Amino acid sequence: MNTATLLISCPDRKGLSAAIANFLYTYNANIVHSDQHQDVTDDLFLMRVEWDLTDFTLDMAAFAPAFQPIADRFNMQWKVALTTRRPRMAIFVSKYDHCLVDLLHRHQSGELACDIPLVISNHEDCRAITEFYGVPYHVIPVNKDNKVQAEEAQRQLLQDNGIDLIVLARYMQVLSHDFTARYPQRVINIHHSFLPAFDGAKPYHRAFARGVKLIGATSHYVTEILDDGPIIEQDVIRISHRDDVEELVRKGRDLEKIVLSRAVKWHLENRVLVFANKTVIFA
Amino acid sequence: MNTATLLISCPDRKGLSAAIANFLYTYNANIVHSDQHQDVTDDLFLMRVEWDLTDFTLDMAAFAPAFQPIADRFNMQWKVALTTRRPRMAIFVSKYDHCLVDLLHRHQSGELACDIPLVISNHEDCRAITEFYGVPYHVIPVNKDNKVQAEEAQRQLLQDNGIDLIVLARYMQVLSHDFTARYPQRVINIHHSFLPAFDGAKPYHRAFARGVKLIGATSHYVTEILDDGPIIEQDVIRISHRDDVEELVRKGRDLEKIVLSRAVKWHLENRVLVFANKTVIFA
Amino acid sequence: MNTATLLISCPDRKGLSAAIANFLYTYNANIVHSDQHQDVTDDLFLMRVEWDLTDFTLDMAAFAPAFQPIADRFNMQWKVALTTRRPRMAIFVSKYDHCLVDLLHRHQSGELACDIPLVISNHEDCRAITEFYGVPYHVIPVNKDNKVQAEEAQRQLLQDNGIDLIVLARYMQVLSHDFTARYPQRVINIHHSFLPAFDGAKPYHRAFARGVKLIGATSHYVTEILDDGPIIEQDVIRISHRDDVEELVRKGRDLEKIVLSRAVKWHLENRVLVFANKTVIFA
Amino acid sequence: MNTATLLISCPDRKGLSAAIANFLYTYNANIVHSDQHQDVTDDLFLMRVEWDLTDFTLDMAAFAPAFQPIADRFNMQWKVALTTRRPRMAIFVSKYDHCLVDLLHRHQSGELACDIPLVISNHEDCRAITEFYGVPYHVIPVNKDNKVQAEEAQRQLLQDNGIDLIVLARYMQVLSHDFTARYPQRVINIHHSFLPAFDGAKPYHRAFARGVKLIGATSHYVTEILDDGPIIEQDVIRISHRDDVEELVRKGRDLEKIVLSRAVKWHLENRVLVFANKTVIFA
Repeated sequence: MNTATLLISCPDRKGLSAAIANFLYTYNANIVHSDQHQDVTDDLFLMRVEWDLTDFTLDMAAFAPAFQPIADRFNMQWKVALTTRRPRMAIFVSKYDHCLVDLLHRHQSGELACDIPLVISNHEDCRAITEFYGVPYHVIPVNKDNKVQAEEAQRQLLQDNGIDLIVLARYMQVLSHDFTARYPQRVINIHHSFLPAFDGAKPYHRAFARGVKLIGATSHYVTEILDDGPIIEQDVIRISHRDDVEELVRKGRDLEKIVLSRAVKWHLENRVLVFANKTVIFA
Repeated sequence: MNTATLLISCPDRKGLSAAIANFLYTYNANIVHSDQHQDVTDDLFLMRVEWDLTDFTLDMAAFAPAFQPIADRFNMQWKVALTTRRPRMAIFVSKYDHCLVDLLHRHQSGELACDIPLVISNHEDCRAITEFYGVPYHVIPVNKDNKVQAEEAQRQLLQDNGIDLIVLARYMQVLSHDFTARYPQRVINIHHSFLPAFDGAKPYHRAFARGVKLIGATSHYVTEILDDGPIIEQDVIRISHRDDVEELVRKGRDLEKIVLSRAVKWHLENRVLVFANKTVIFA
Repeated sequence: MNTATLLISCPDRKGLSAAIANFLYTYNANIVHSDQHQDVTDDLFLMRVEWDLTDFTLDMAAFAPAFQPIADRFNMQWKVALTTRRPRMAIFVSKYDHCLVDLLHRHQSGELACDIPLVISNHEDCRAITEFYGVPYHVIPVNKDNKVQAEEAQRQLLQDNGIDLIVLARYMQVLSHDFTARYPQRVINIHHSFLPAFDGAKPYHRAFARGVKLIGATSHYVTEILDDGPIIEQDVIRISHRDDVEELVRKGRDLEKIVLSRAVKWHLENRVLVFANKTVIFA
Repeated sequence: MNTATLLISCPDRKGLSAAIANFLYTYNANIVHSDQHQDVTDDLFLMRVEWDLTDFTLDMAAFAPAFQPIADRFNMQWKVALTTRRPRMAIFVSKYDHCLVDLLHRHQSGELACDIPLVISNHEDCRAITEFYGVPYHVIPVNKDNKVQAEEAQRQLLQDNGIDLIVLARYMQVLSHDFTARYPQRVINIHHSFLPAFDGAKPYHRAFARGVKLIGATSHYVTEILDDGPIIEQDVIRISHRDDVEELVRKGRDLEKIVLSRAVKWHLENRVLVFANKTVIFA
């Protein structure tokens, strides 16, 4: 099914629903999914509406000029996405391959509505499996002396490949703010703890030392502050005194894969809206 | 906040959202919650919309005649509920008191937006705690010979107290279909298994015998067929080989309380819509 | 069933299991539960063994002198508990009554193997429900000027009632270290977050502000450092953007009740062993 | 670490723990994991004990004759497994590849302590990924006319490869009882429902039709009766009215992978004991 999805965020005002519904009805939209949220704390209206384009009488090339007057009237931030325009996703990886393998296999299975033009790594380790799935693999070594040049090389690759979304699939380097600022709300990271607990380094070791009874994983958009961006998804799993750090790492891998893949899927399906350093998930 | 909540179910047609949104905007509704679901399998449109009545310019006494033309046009089943009109809930209980105590305490805490004019039981056991919470307690013994008379006595009590919702809080008698048919989608039961597994009698014993690794509880509307009505909520908890039947019963109690109280709360807040022997939960 | 439970913690050495098993077999113990844990990180042996006293040929009054030679040989910390000697538990509460009510009802249902000689509060609010369950209720107001005297009054009550275990059921005062140090590993607190996230004040508000997707609760032994003691139990529940702070508080109450009651139950059944600021749960 | 693991199942009798512990201590065993379970309902003693072989003074080739007298005395069923002797696992698959891919990747990551000499399928679809992981892939087509010959060909392959464990990774053919009876408690299946709910065909479709709020997956040993063998592991995931059957299938895949891989891992690590058509998991 060819659909368009409209994401809207604006101050909450009476008549918003009616204005949007009337606009879509004018052009004979067949709505297949609609969800909205009135956030009382921040006085915001957030909405996702998706419609089948089969009977839609407005050419999507003319959507922006047609919709802009309504957007202006209600002071909206908005975007519209088409299933015919598949986002282009780059995956960054280091040596741990479980999230990469998981994403590649889900992509092949048709779970992720995107193209994956490339994988970028600072190591050779994940080349074979990446190329097995037909995805080009680029190694850009990173060390403390070449960080600027490495990021420049990465940036060039992303640009050449028209990348919309960057997924950090256990990429073990911290990207500079200059780098990530070019992709606002378009760099997704997986952190191997239940944030805000154990942000930063070695979360499984610290979870073990603290004696927690559950470990977690958190997928979030990358912002200027480490491990502080808007959380897209989290989950946890029970552990016991029987589990040593290696077992926490192993159990955590399953969490990381699932939590990251949910976040990526929702982002690709335009189900995530960011506000106040939080997210609404229209799933 | 005084609000009105409109629940709608009808065949999915273009223009539905616009018609409803325009109607509400015409009377200056300030929408505080809106959620809808397009069910592709059954080609249905299901919606819940709640608005603050402060600025609403239509007298709610005149709501039905004003809205009916739209309802007719789209062949809607609909109802509107007002927070100023608190539903009246009766609780049926036998000897196990955990669900009863849980509901009474939640009600006192303000979690359940209803009045509880009475508790009906076939035993004396739960009188003291019920009366502690200020709720009248009626004992109507039931045996195989007086079933018809007992139900008639119950029915009279319900009618005299203007009851809207019946909650079977581990009530150990099966009500006749004649009885429950008077309260369609208004009798909520808690079954102590993950339905459809272990429907009928002694589910914990059968779960133990089968060696399952999780036990569950299910809250559902009562229909003509035992344990077959639309499921409102379910949850599970992990068990192990260490747990005997008594421990399953004990762990299950926590499930039963939580699952039943969620279902009751959602029903009272008009968040449940039934279709095709299933439910949509607008939570 | 009358049983004895032996809890042992010592450096891991060969022959430990044999020495303990032989000792128990010598006196014809019928073991009903045995669990042990070799902690590699800290090179510790931790064990719980429970046996039926029916056929046991050693008078339990003579247990200590009989067992001490083995304990000395392996440098054990150990204790033995008898089901015939019910622990005496005091509950501290302020105004939020959900954990208190939950514990009182579980106690009445026979879930908690203890006596509850008293509830201590700094407010009158929970008197009626406490007295309904037949438990004496003592109000000791606390303010910034009378803290020392208040604690002295509490301490006297605890001593007069022969209290073994103190449960802080959302008691909103921080107890002095002098006070809690008298009850090492015998003061259990419930904190309304997934520790170590959101330790300290107003965890639900901070969870809401951070935009987490799950909220948690943590039960732990109280130590000198606030919210830092050995964790006994934790659990989480999913929240969404629909949930405001009040809804987090409401959902959290169910977590707090369940997490605290599990911790209390395990403690009372001698299933908890503390080591390295962590716990082993022999459940 | 080279270890031996002893699994024991027998009628519960006094002196069992002492006899086993003494035996191991006699030969200087350094125990690294010990867990036991007294099953009151069936009056059984079940135990797993694992010890480091470094200091063990009994040659494992002589273990059986040395231990048999104790086994005879207590009427034990027992087996001993060595980490130096890796089990040989065959995976059966049809067209759905998610469980296969998951197992192959876990194996490569070192999570599964076994060799995988072959994958058997009735279709060509999964050849490429299997061979990528260096595992031989055998296609044996199955139709209603060649079932006997197909199973004979499978049986020959299993025998030639010295297979210990068969994993049915969404293999869509029902194996004959003659076939599976050769591998008692050594054929593990994944069923895509929370058994005993929705045993047999099309569980996701039936779960959707019933309107359940959670879907599940179950891993179990295959026995003569379809979907009725001892359950090793189960788990569930929440669904909502938003999810159609295809989404249930997609969400279910994550469950199936995790539940099956846990069961396989526990089996390979000799953590599973079967009794009374149930399992004890010493994890």
